Amino acid sequence: MVNVAVLGHGVVGSGVSEVIFKNKEIIKERAGEEVNLKKILDLKDFKDLSYSNLFTKNFDEILNDEEISIAIETMGGVSPAYQFTKDLLKSGKSVVTSNKELVCCHGFELLEIAKKNKVNFLYEASVGGGMPIVNPLQFSLSANRIEKIEGILNGTTNFILTNMFSEGLSFEEALKLAQDLGYAEKDPYDDIHGIDSGRKICILGSLAILKNIEYSRAKVKGIEDVDLVDVLFAKSSRFKIKLVATIEFSNSFVSEIEVCPCFLEESHKLFSIDGVLNGVVVKGDAVGEVLFSGKGAGKLATASAVLSDVILIVRNSFENISPILEKDDGDCFLEDSGNLKSFYIRLET
Amino acid sequence: MVNVAVLGHGVVGSGVSEVIFKNKEIIKERAGEEVNLKKILDLKDFKDLSYSNLFTKNFDEILNDEEISIAIETMGGVSPAYQFTKDLLKSGKSVVTSNKELVCCHGFELLEIAKKNKVNFLYEASVGGGMPIVNPLQFSLSANRIEKIEGILNGTTNFILTNMFSEGLSFEEALKLAQDLGYAEKDPYDDIHGIDSGRKICILGSLAILKNIEYSRAKVKGIEDVDLVDVLFAKSSRFKIKLVATIEFSNSFVSEIEVCPCFLEESHKLFSIDGVLNGVVVKGDAVGEVLFSGKGAGKLATASAVLSDVILIVRNSFENISPILEKDDGDCFLEDSGNLKSFYIRLET
Repeated sequence: MVNVAVLGHGVVGSGVSEVIFKNKEIIKERAGEEVNLKKILDLKDFKDLSYSNLFTKNFDEILNDEEISIAIETMGGVSPAYQFTKDLLKSGKSVVTSNKELVCCHGFELLEIAKKNKVNFLYEASVGGGMPIVNPLQFSLSANRIEKIEGILNGTTNFILTNMFSEGLSFEEALKLAQDLGYAEKDPYDDIHGIDSGRKICILGSLAILKNIEYSRAKVKGIEDVDLVDVLFAKSSRFKIKLVATIEFSNSFVSEIEVCPCFLEESHKLFSIDGVLNGVVVKGDAVGEVLFSGKGAGKLATASAVLSDVILIVRNSFENISPILEKDDGDCFLEDSGNLKSFYIRLET
Repeated sequence: MVNVAVLGHGVVGSGVSEVIFKNKEIIKERAGEEVNLKKILDLKDFKDLSYSNLFTKNFDEILNDEEISIAIETMGGVSPAYQFTKDLLKSGKSVVTSNKELVCCHGFELLEIAKKNKVNFLYEASVGGGMPIVNPLQFSLSANRIEKIEGILNGTTNFILTNMFSEGLSFEEALKLAQDLGYAEKDPYDDIHGIDSGRKICILGSLAILKNIEYSRAKVKGIEDVDLVDVLFAKSSRFKIKLVATIEFSNSFVSEIEVCPCFLEESHKLFSIDGVLNGVVVKGDAVGEVLFSGKGAGKLATASAVLSDVILIVRNSFENISPILEKDDGDCFLEDSGNLKSFYIRLET
């Protein structure tokens, strides 16, 4: 039996607990051992839950519990997740996270600490929610020189753009709908401005060349200036506007890393990735283009990704299966080519 | 350094050699060790190749070479692939294969032999060519109770149907075009009659419930009776006819396993999987629907999948990472529900 703890009982954390209880037998069969949820860290009270006895408000109770070998970090944000994760890895516990900000800002360092302590730091759920992409990049496309990764990596903005396109809602109306339905946070700044997508494309790009790509390298533009009139203009020409994150490589050097609203034509593989779906196209020199698509967020979908990492660790007897990245010392970037690209300019006269 | 041998230097086998040479550095980085192609088995002569010195016509030279630890079987068909694979596993070598017939007919036994001999038998390339699906099912969706798998798993028939739909070709014309372009074999019987798709859905279904599902359980109907008039009738109602393989589960019991031509509407996730592409939708109770799509066949795409398995074995230090299946003793099947389904009948009057 393997004991795990969940840090944070929000949307993702509560989903993780739910799936651990619901699919206990399946997880045991796949992992080869029972996965037992021993403790949950949250500052809030959850007295009405059937498993309220598992809650603690004291991180040290998890850190110092030698029976717990895997911690699942679902708190989000950098503080205190970063410090907690560092402490856990140093104490010899593996950590699985859904926290893209943590992975993007500190993943390289955390992977180093994990390696040094012979434990794992895995983060399938940090990109694409339930959609498998982090591990397939590592394990299924590993014989390829990756040439390009292109993705719709943010469900909130995709939901907004989809509803502007198909329902004719204004940006504000679509955002409000997303918030009412729980698809957008109260403060959607990072989503709307492309920052969330930028973090995720850096995470994927790093795995593609096994070098840590820092967020500051990305040119990021969100959908904050996309008006309904733009979406409808695109629609009239059979295009859709999507927020696409792209990283391109030339012989394993990064030639371009960018997030921006794009006009996609019907034949584009991401054209029909609508609503809260995420989609990623990976182009490898041997495999050609491969498309992955699925729910980019949501309680149970993200829990599915988190727990697949837990199962991977248990099944592989805690051998180090985390990615090994090299530091970004700047030499994996080609100088900006400066080629003229396509632009879209709308003038009001 | 890990030494590997390739059995069969046809389309897939030659692709494997090509990618091993071309992406030597990348494979080394991902696997943690150099992967060295030491021998190639083929009865034909390949004197003009730069690596013609690696060829042998004598299987025993590979079987008895203690320096070779992984054999890559790309011969296709059951004989002699089955006997060779059995001998290799028993002699303590891991085997990676792209051979769906072998996996479907003898996979269960070969996995048992691999387990007993503490080696691996992996087969990502046996379904979907380069598209990752076998390993994601095992490693990325493992926390889910799988409810349904639905796929376009045969590139030949999909190419034929796509060309009937978009170019108005007759079945015979489209088949001839597929053969001329190398997308269909000279004897396309297994493809056309749905047998190939049936084998593949059995392989995926087995991984979904970790029980060996025998091919005889599947109801299989191919596209042999699909006429251009049917395809055009579908088109006139905005449908496409696709050869879809489906397995449905109810609480981890198989309730339906079928291959047949289906009418797909535009909103269906497989609607835009055209030409030689393969696509699979997996529905899990936590993750919802996840779509995978990519080139279902082809020299380099299939080599990509084969070599990802090789890298997985080397990277995991030859620990047993193969699926562990239970025998199909019939108790994982629900009795046929006998519900009336949708039928399509065309009468000539």
